Amino acid sequence: MKAEIITIGDEILIGQIVDTNSAWIAEQFNLNGIEIYQITSVHDDTEHIAEAMQIAEKKADLVILTGGLGPTKDDITKHALCDYFNTKLVFHEQTFENIKNRFKNRNIDLNKLNRDQAMLPGACTVLTNKVGSAPGMWFEKNDTIFVSVPGVPFEMKYLVENEILPRLRTNGKAKAIFHKTVQTQGLPESMLAEKIENWETSLPENIKLAYLPNPMSVRLRLSAIGTDLEELKRLVGGEIEKLKQLIPDYIFGYDNETLGEITGRLLREKGLTLAVAESCTGGYISHLITSVPGSSEYFRGGVTAYSNEVKKSLLGVSELTLQNYGAVSSEVVREMALGVRKKLGADFAVATSGIAGPTGGTEEKPVGTVWIAIAGPENTITEKFIFGDNRERNIIRSSQTALQLLRRQLMAV
Amino acid sequence: MKAEIITIGDEILIGQIVDTNSAWIAEQFNLNGIEIYQITSVHDDTEHIAEAMQIAEKKADLVILTGGLGPTKDDITKHALCDYFNTKLVFHEQTFENIKNRFKNRNIDLNKLNRDQAMLPGACTVLTNKVGSAPGMWFEKNDTIFVSVPGVPFEMKYLVENEILPRLRTNGKAKAIFHKTVQTQGLPESMLAEKIENWETSLPENIKLAYLPNPMSVRLRLSAIGTDLEELKRLVGGEIEKLKQLIPDYIFGYDNETLGEITGRLLREKGLTLAVAESCTGGYISHLITSVPGSSEYFRGGVTAYSNEVKKSLLGVSELTLQNYGAVSSEVVREMALGVRKKLGADFAVATSGIAGPTGGTEEKPVGTVWIAIAGPENTITEKFIFGDNRERNIIRSSQTALQLLRRQLMAV
Repeated sequence: MKAEIITIGDEILIGQIVDTNSAWIAEQFNLNGIEIYQITSVHDDTEHIAEAMQIAEKKADLVILTGGLGPTKDDITKHALCDYFNTKLVFHEQTFENIKNRFKNRNIDLNKLNRDQAMLPGACTVLTNKVGSAPGMWFEKNDTIFVSVPGVPFEMKYLVENEILPRLRTNGKAKAIFHKTVQTQGLPESMLAEKIENWETSLPENIKLAYLPNPMSVRLRLSAIGTDLEELKRLVGGEIEKLKQLIPDYIFGYDNETLGEITGRLLREKGLTLAVAESCTGGYISHLITSVPGSSEYFRGGVTAYSNEVKKSLLGVSELTLQNYGAVSSEVVREMALGVRKKLGADFAVATSGIAGPTGGTEEKPVGTVWIAIAGPENTITEKFIFGDNRERNIIRSSQTALQLLRRQLMAV
Repeated sequence: MKAEIITIGDEILIGQIVDTNSAWIAEQFNLNGIEIYQITSVHDDTEHIAEAMQIAEKKADLVILTGGLGPTKDDITKHALCDYFNTKLVFHEQTFENIKNRFKNRNIDLNKLNRDQAMLPGACTVLTNKVGSAPGMWFEKNDTIFVSVPGVPFEMKYLVENEILPRLRTNGKAKAIFHKTVQTQGLPESMLAEKIENWETSLPENIKLAYLPNPMSVRLRLSAIGTDLEELKRLVGGEIEKLKQLIPDYIFGYDNETLGEITGRLLREKGLTLAVAESCTGGYISHLITSVPGSSEYFRGGVTAYSNEVKKSLLGVSELTLQNYGAVSSEVVREMALGVRKKLGADFAVATSGIAGPTGGTEEKPVGTVWIAIAGPENTITEKFIFGDNRERNIIRSSQTALQLLRRQLMAV
């Protein structure tokens, strides 16, 4: 089954919001064997929506429209749908009851705009939205299914998971697709390609390989297409086993596993605890670790030491070390790691100190200079990095690099 | 001038990555008076790319293609471009020199794949990429300009800023567009719409209004189209002044200003300092604050107290309070705020304690229960919230809500 996603909303086309809905829908559909042929973002404009639907109808068995449904005046999707399916808006009692109940629970009075939300195209099957006031709408025309859902992410997700996918599963025409991604670190894309060239050339015809490089790592995605999902999983699994033997030291994770999850798994497996002391990363490492459910099992906590006084008072960094070497130095970052490890009684500690930018650099220590320390039961290592001049990217890269260093130290335990 | 963005890459259509490039390009182009008509994401497939280019050519004066350029075998964009413009790949000496120099600086040997990157369509103007190895390519066909750039975000950004926009500016045919967004908090979308209905109805014809709701706030975007940018700015500014008088208490910021920036500005203006003590938000508040350049001026630091021991040892929360009320309580979050304020010598302190989930809830304190405290020179307030059952969303909403509470306390100083 081939699907197209049409996202409706000026806010996407002026770059005000990033279209995360499409990525989520694409992932869910792929996991359910529905291939996404194209994603198209169009304006809040009746004609433009109709045009995109016409083009999509020719290629796709399923068209999912997101956005453009809400109580206010910029709502034009329903009118575009009425035109397209040659139908009219009619009052939908059950949707109105749903809206009334939602407002009653929140002690808010209904107004006319809320009543208008219960006016729906007569030709559609209404998909009840239990987490919001705008319902989903399901249409069929010739051999193509069209579904319209609100753009608010958790309402869209609710309708896809609870209404759309269950209906599509009964359909049964889906092809099986299986993706697996291998995360590698330590080899640039072209060198990695050279190292695995023979393996790549000998991949079965129904497996495609893609290189997905980013500044921190290169991910290799294998995509297998066939009829039997279990068979595809075995096939891809076998190829990954061969790959592991070719580049054992460079693989660090699979699929969308984050470094927070990977280091968390290692800490849990080994029964170890962690603490962090952050200067330039400003709490971001702590956030990456605590984004993982259950992280309280191994994460004791951390200190964001944005001033020298906090480095001294909470982490025990000595005044002399700060004076002699400056805050961005091997010596200070080492004392930060040792200090937080001791204060919080953790087995391992991570510390960072650097110049995130955009200002604050010197000739000797330019913006992007970052020192990272990992203190463990056996030893403490420190390493210096020079990233770029972009604050946001420096924070992210420093944090990811610190977790990579931690991962390597944990592997050695 | 009307533009279309075509993003190339299976990774977008299987939902592996979120297309942030399009949002960035759309924003930059809009700021430069170039309207984005549509964003289309297609597969790494020669025919599909050609099809999208054909459709785009009919509607757009400018088509920007991103992605599908890299040293490895999944690179097919260049071949699609050769087919489309009826040209062949030829060796481009200057690009090869650029690649050689990049590798020399990193002490890495060149291989055949790197040499292939210097093979470019004969019909294009080469746009030199000073931050990566794949150059941009500029084509003209009939009255449409096509530009292809790599998908790696900072390389794409470099080429847009340094090569594409300067060339388009000399063109001069662009229409002026001006967007301004007002961030509101405290009124649901439908009630806000009712309150400002008369203002909305009397907006000049060339100003469009859009409601952009999310779980934390409702943003109102005004978009004005005309010929003179300064005139549009004045026009929009005047309408916003009227809006301010209608809903003075609900407006908290403009455009993409974050709560980190807004609270940071207030702290700086009033010469105050801040400290944070985070439990359930796990460092995210600290990250939101330190993402702002210059935050070290007013942010002293924070403690992520993920275990009760850390709450006691670093923040001075009393054992008795923890035993009597539990970690997720008004009493504990108050002691956390008071503790970190005192220890770090800050004027204001924010503290959070809650159950982020997905597990750990009880009947009395379900997942999503969060206590937030703000301690200041005059008083300390605490407030309880019940968010949902999604960990990631709970962390974000708790953090944003804490900064909203802080903002209100700072306004009152």
